Amino acid sequence: MSLIVVGTMAYDAIETPFGKTDRIVGGSATYVAWSASNFYQPIKQVSIVGGDFEEKEMTELAARGVAFEGVEVVKEGKSFFWSGRYHTDMNSRDTLITDLNVLEQFNPILPDAYQDCQYLMLGNLAPAVQKSVIHQLKNRPKLIVLDTMNFWMDIALDELKDVLKLVDVLVVNDGEARQLSGEFSLVKAAKVIRAMGPKYLIIKKGEHGALLFYNEHIFSAPALPLEEVFDPTGAGDTFAGGFVGYIAQQDNLSFETMKKAVIVGSAMASFCVEKFGPERMKEINAADIDARLAQFQELAHF
Amino acid sequence: MSLIVVGTMAYDAIETPFGKTDRIVGGSATYVAWSASNFYQPIKQVSIVGGDFEEKEMTELAARGVAFEGVEVVKEGKSFFWSGRYHTDMNSRDTLITDLNVLEQFNPILPDAYQDCQYLMLGNLAPAVQKSVIHQLKNRPKLIVLDTMNFWMDIALDELKDVLKLVDVLVVNDGEARQLSGEFSLVKAAKVIRAMGPKYLIIKKGEHGALLFYNEHIFSAPALPLEEVFDPTGAGDTFAGGFVGYIAQQDNLSFETMKKAVIVGSAMASFCVEKFGPERMKEINAADIDARLAQFQELAHF
Repeated sequence: MSLIVVGTMAYDAIETPFGKTDRIVGGSATYVAWSASNFYQPIKQVSIVGGDFEEKEMTELAARGVAFEGVEVVKEGKSFFWSGRYHTDMNSRDTLITDLNVLEQFNPILPDAYQDCQYLMLGNLAPAVQKSVIHQLKNRPKLIVLDTMNFWMDIALDELKDVLKLVDVLVVNDGEARQLSGEFSLVKAAKVIRAMGPKYLIIKKGEHGALLFYNEHIFSAPALPLEEVFDPTGAGDTFAGGFVGYIAQQDNLSFETMKKAVIVGSAMASFCVEKFGPERMKEINAADIDARLAQFQELAHF
Repeated sequence: MSLIVVGTMAYDAIETPFGKTDRIVGGSATYVAWSASNFYQPIKQVSIVGGDFEEKEMTELAARGVAFEGVEVVKEGKSFFWSGRYHTDMNSRDTLITDLNVLEQFNPILPDAYQDCQYLMLGNLAPAVQKSVIHQLKNRPKLIVLDTMNFWMDIALDELKDVLKLVDVLVVNDGEARQLSGEFSLVKAAKVIRAMGPKYLIIKKGEHGALLFYNEHIFSAPALPLEEVFDPTGAGDTFAGGFVGYIAQQDNLSFETMKKAVIVGSAMASFCVEKFGPERMKEINAADIDARLAQFQELAHF
């Protein structure tokens, strides 16, 4: 049994009101792997990098049970690069640079060793690539989770709707849920989106937490109120990683497990924003995570 | 023992994207009394109305254990009147008319029968009036809860800061917490505001729920996700009424009781927005409230 994570492995340059980084490792699959590997191993990564991608970034993840057979290394190419600047409220950002580089030619071929996949996490990526990975699996995984963003709704809506028919869980933020559904009310948006395919819908609301929709059930997870959000980059991917990692660990698809998984995802995201890039994710251990989960319990239970 | 509620009893004319009312009963003390009386009686009302205030509005509340000895009726005067129009998102509104009328001469004198007050709810009103009521009580109540709004921060900040030194719980929304503290982060805002006097701070976030701050503790209450918010008028007062009514019922000031009281307030507010004005508040019964509280349990517990 394994958890496959599909997404970008990349470099970012980030500016926030608290400072800036020149070039720091990033990418959706990087954050998902750092987060999910706290709960479940092995993780089988699917991505593409250039010859500039540092060996040590893979070595560190390999030490956490992440396999890289499915990661294509284009020696003569350069890794995907994104640069952005966050506004004072940290809820909005300007993209300064997007260099697709090797991502333009990304057409993943799943290794045979990946065919034991039970849990599939499709990180934010072109919907056509997400769909291709699903189709390459001979046995359908127990659970397929898909993360996406407004960018794909703008330029590849039909492909996105195609892949939505094939997945179990969709993870988007509130603005994206409104865009995809055409509904302002998130309750109405959830009905429209769930009719597109996913049985479960998670709507992330940043500092306001996240909502999980399933049939007539709604679960509302709080976000940890923070004095400062240092850098929100990767928080959504880290959330998704905690969510799917916890479910794979429990190997259980009950609604109770899903609820707890949303809390675990929220807890992981609350670490991620404390430092630049995945820095904080590299520091935390099981005791830190347990303490943070206890904080969520105190925060939400009455 | 009694619960004193101080605030306006008034008429509103409301426009929302769903319709409009010409003239409907409203006012902070009206909403608080309708909400709190589900949990605790007697309620001793302190307000001022004109000769135009309909007898039946008082009769209905009297049947719920609300006493009106402290409500001044100015026969030749007119009741406070407010008219507003909500925007599509229901989070913002334009004030069309504010006729203070009898409110301009409001200088409440507490009846002797009100001196048994153990719980004091100071609804949204001029801070100087709120302060005057506190000073008229010979014995300090067990708990003083104060609701206010940005309007008083704009025109009577010093008086507001004066009264804040005398209260236990402050209830404001997120924008008001930021304005009062000068801090964007709500965690930082809570520290600044609690240093002004109130041991407990509740920050209401509309559709995103509410936060309760006390020492190092934070509790996050969800809002019930709704398909439609029909009319948000009075939701904040209804929240405050449920909060203080539940605490008076329990007669207990533990943090656990405060948390539950925030949930009760949220549940009551979720009813209020379902119809125009206090219409829905007049319909609901104990079974409706219990069912709604069970929904909050399902919504928040994991």
